[in-house]
Amino acid sequence: MSSKNQRRNYKLKQSWYSKNNRNNQNGGKHSQGKKPGGRPSYVEPIKPVKKPPVKISFLGGLNEIGKNITLIECSGDIIVIDCGMAFPDGDMLGVDLVIPDFSYIEQNADKVRGIVLTHGHEDHIGGLPFLLSKMNVPLYGTPLTLGLVENKLREHSLVNKVKLNTVNAGSTIHLGCMDVKFIHVNHSIPDAVAFAVKTPGGTIVHTGDFKIDCTPISGDTIDLSSFAKVGDEGVLALLGESTNAERPGYTPTERMVSESLDGLFKKAEKYRIIIATFASNVNRVQQIINCAEKYGRKVAFSGRSMVNYMDVAGKLGYLNLPKNILIDIDMLNKYPPEQVVLVTTGSQGEPMSALSRMAYSDHRKVMVGEGDFIIISANPIPGNEKTVGNVVDELLKRGCKVIYESMYDVHVSGHACQEELKIIHRLVRPKYFIPVHGEQKHLRKHAELAEFLGMDKKHIYIGDIGKTIEVCDDYMREVASVPAGKVFVDGLGVGDVGSIVLRDRKHLGQDGLIIIVASLDVYDGHVITGPDIVSRGFVYVRESETLLDEVRKLALGILEDCAEKNIHEWGVIKNRLREEISKLISQRTRRSPMILPILQEV
Amino acid sequence: MSSKNQRRNYKLKQSWYSKNNRNNQNGGKHSQGKKPGGRPSYVEPIKPVKKPPVKISFLGGLNEIGKNITLIECSGDIIVIDCGMAFPDGDMLGVDLVIPDFSYIEQNADKVRGIVLTHGHEDHIGGLPFLLSKMNVPLYGTPLTLGLVENKLREHSLVNKVKLNTVNAGSTIHLGCMDVKFIHVNHSIPDAVAFAVKTPGGTIVHTGDFKIDCTPISGDTIDLSSFAKVGDEGVLALLGESTNAERPGYTPTERMVSESLDGLFKKAEKYRIIIATFASNVNRVQQIINCAEKYGRKVAFSGRSMVNYMDVAGKLGYLNLPKNILIDIDMLNKYPPEQVVLVTTGSQGEPMSALSRMAYSDHRKVMVGEGDFIIISANPIPGNEKTVGNVVDELLKRGCKVIYESMYDVHVSGHACQEELKIIHRLVRPKYFIPVHGEQKHLRKHAELAEFLGMDKKHIYIGDIGKTIEVCDDYMREVASVPAGKVFVDGLGVGDVGSIVLRDRKHLGQDGLIIIVASLDVYDGHVITGPDIVSRGFVYVRESETLLDEVRKLALGILEDCAEKNIHEWGVIKNRLREEISKLISQRTRRSPMILPILQEV
Repeated sequence: MSSKNQRRNYKLKQSWYSKNNRNNQNGGKHSQGKKPGGRPSYVEPIKPVKKPPVKISFLGGLNEIGKNITLIECSGDIIVIDCGMAFPDGDMLGVDLVIPDFSYIEQNADKVRGIVLTHGHEDHIGGLPFLLSKMNVPLYGTPLTLGLVENKLREHSLVNKVKLNTVNAGSTIHLGCMDVKFIHVNHSIPDAVAFAVKTPGGTIVHTGDFKIDCTPISGDTIDLSSFAKVGDEGVLALLGESTNAERPGYTPTERMVSESLDGLFKKAEKYRIIIATFASNVNRVQQIINCAEKYGRKVAFSGRSMVNYMDVAGKLGYLNLPKNILIDIDMLNKYPPEQVVLVTTGSQGEPMSALSRMAYSDHRKVMVGEGDFIIISANPIPGNEKTVGNVVDELLKRGCKVIYESMYDVHVSGHACQEELKIIHRLVRPKYFIPVHGEQKHLRKHAELAEFLGMDKKHIYIGDIGKTIEVCDDYMREVASVPAGKVFVDGLGVGDVGSIVLRDRKHLGQDGLIIIVASLDVYDGHVITGPDIVSRGFVYVRESETLLDEVRKLALGILEDCAEKNIHEWGVIKNRLREEISKLISQRTRRSPMILPILQEV
Repeated sequence: MSSKNQRRNYKLKQSWYSKNNRNNQNGGKHSQGKKPGGRPSYVEPIKPVKKPPVKISFLGGLNEIGKNITLIECSGDIIVIDCGMAFPDGDMLGVDLVIPDFSYIEQNADKVRGIVLTHGHEDHIGGLPFLLSKMNVPLYGTPLTLGLVENKLREHSLVNKVKLNTVNAGSTIHLGCMDVKFIHVNHSIPDAVAFAVKTPGGTIVHTGDFKIDCTPISGDTIDLSSFAKVGDEGVLALLGESTNAERPGYTPTERMVSESLDGLFKKAEKYRIIIATFASNVNRVQQIINCAEKYGRKVAFSGRSMVNYMDVAGKLGYLNLPKNILIDIDMLNKYPPEQVVLVTTGSQGEPMSALSRMAYSDHRKVMVGEGDFIIISANPIPGNEKTVGNVVDELLKRGCKVIYESMYDVHVSGHACQEELKIIHRLVRPKYFIPVHGEQKHLRKHAELAEFLGMDKKHIYIGDIGKTIEVCDDYMREVASVPAGKVFVDGLGVGDVGSIVLRDRKHLGQDGLIIIVASLDVYDGHVITGPDIVSRGFVYVRESETLLDEVRKLALGILEDCAEKNIHEWGVIKNRLREEISKLISQRTRRSPMILPILQEV
């Protein structure tokens, strides 16, 4: 590898040499033979021209699952790889979704040459509307990815503002000083790509999300020969996804699911079949459709995102639909149960999803019961185990047959396991390696794997969001950080829910609140009306009248005492109310609701 | 099986016959030859005496994990099997723990002969203090179980009130008309038992939590011959735990962990070793101690419950401690890292646990870093995957080596897998089967397993909390339900947090609140002070002044409009405020905070 790198360096030096030399010749036209100052004429030895370093900044996707976004910067040009969102953790109360902090991109807007997208999953494209509503950047992606982006932009009324540039896998685009090659990979959504970014400082390979599927349902096997070619030409740094870095072996082919589905369709011959899966997994749905055709069943879709994804995938030709196989969900009950398959969202037990609604008898169009054979063709994403379990339990209680988790092979991952990761490392043979897309444990495992493959530990970098590294032939080092973080989207508000609001939400959610309202005499501070005690989320008021009465008396006492002592600073009075009432409540109940004194002057 | 049952019936009939006959002879002494009324003398055919049915009520443990409690009632006597608690689900905001609804027990206090305990886990004994603070019932359990119960009762100042009766496995106690045999089983805590309850109506077997461990760390293998004997004598109904009913095969022996630990101790020779496990898993800790002794390390305990459990287990002789092996946690830093093992709580990533505190640099006595080799000797309980993952990530970030999840065999389950369940079914050969301890999916799987073993589907009952079944030789049927549910404990309050309070907490936690306070003229309803707008958990106020200003103006407009229109019913005014302000907020932010109007009259 190092000899390859040297060879490449050499070539580059040559071309820079010619350029510089040419300039020199032009500039020095009239000074041939002698330099000004009479020094003797000779050609100075040409110093090897330093290649510019490449800066890589991570605004998301490290030490977290989701909101993947990486910046590559060289010679004053920046490209952005992906722009994802993340789902909120349990402690981000009321938050709808989480997006990256875009300040660094905004501050360097004039340098940004484009956003290149690996694939159409939310954790790779979900942040786009929020960035694009602030600034205009051209987008580059494969047809399906851009089809999904377009839908998303339409929802945010941005569709005519942004230029969408379709790029097919195998093509190379030029963005500033960088050439970005789109390399086809396999994943749980069609039309996914990795990138080889050729910069003046060297080539950076970003795998995106990928797996190696030698028998994919549609499209080709991952373009290993392009990885090989890029590797042969020399790669400065590899950024490799780490989602399954903890898992040994190989991820099975998507095709495996077909066999399992076939067996289950046979088994369920007298039942209506309902299958929940990820709406974006077009190939999975294709397999369901194939099975449905084989067993003479019609297919209906349920769930907004399922309908949307299938609409885009169908229009763009990613779905092979036998004639007349699709029916509207309203037609479902017109067919005998054994002649239909319903494909639905909700494989993660999401409370508002179609499957959850069916489980809790809250779906407007589908009632489930003993005649239903339900297949959850997905594994619970960590954190969703409980909600998925609850949905399964509810379905079972209604008498449905339910196939879930690893009972049958009805799901395979879309991410590379250790053996696949090794293959990419061996093909790409980078000088430096940076694991991306994963929590600390995934990144560490991927780093260990690279070390196991013989890479020098010093050539491996485990980063974090906000970190920027500078990389060139001679070194890889951390440089000044860039702003990065979690920006919360709640309703229409982007970033207006911060730590204080969240802390209050947590406090209110855990312990409820007690409000003390009183009107005080503007002259002497004595109580004119109240204090009235209002509580929410604390105790059931009817059963706790005595306690709230005690609170009122205590509050009145404090207010009158303050008036007597001529204490009129509301801050002081409110603090006393808060402290003494908290103490009383804690003694009586061992709880600590938020105490909110509101005073008015009359 | 049915021939056995018949034989038993026959015997029972015989004894009842003799008894009746004797009475008859005594009662009929002077009427031999002729009955009063001159009817000819003959012996009436003796009707087979009906055995009384057995009633089994479930107050917890069905369709839920935890708060296991079952009642067996026959001929006016009730025994209670276990009295557990459950941990709150994510949507039970602010709830500390969940206990069963005890009303049925309280209503029938005069019939309750005792509470028999299978083992000392919280989901089997955690509800005791709350029941025993309402009524006094004698407790029966094995030495370790009662040792743990005693600690618990002491914390609730109940220890001298309640009679604790120690029963060794193998013994039988008499409670009213019932004989309860304590049968030794293996589990993840020592001294666990199953029960064979002989009632006048037949024998009921309750497995408790169990596994079959043919090479346990301490004590004997599960007493299979007692199960066999009880089975031979005839069993009316089996209540079998279902925790692992989804898992094929066998649960490995606890001893397997020893080998893995040994390998890891070797690997970690230069590191300080920290092992997190369940405090109640005395045998696991024993294995750690054994390993520590072998490798010349001292052992310290961290975490309140770890210290407490080890204290009880040590005192009662369940822990085999080599001389001088234990050190106080304060002495930890006096030894070189490679000479100590710290055994700690926190294997589930609980936020306040010792391991979490170490991970977040919040532990008063233990700082972790690159010199630490940390083993999590437990699997995440469903729902805890995310918190455990977060703790692992934090530890890795600090440079610790971390062994977690299934990387090595450092954990085995304490519950029987399918093959073990089958063995118990085959030994006990019950007439009826009721799966217990599990969510719907576990109960269903266990029911399927019984069916697979040849049991008639009609003889299997999948219950729910509150359900009562009546069972006898002739039938098993559901009878009137009993009160059952989830009672929330929050601080000192038991049951005062109900659905309304929880709903408010959820609303407040998700969206925060806006309070509108105004003082109105008592005569004409015009606004005297305010309206003032106070918000918490909604938006960061400084950045949203304009919006809150809009709200104030709208509120003022509504109040004045009401005054003009002579609308003085506060309910009407408050409703208008709520509705119109909600609408405005929703338009501006797409959020729905709780709107709380508070009006005062001056």
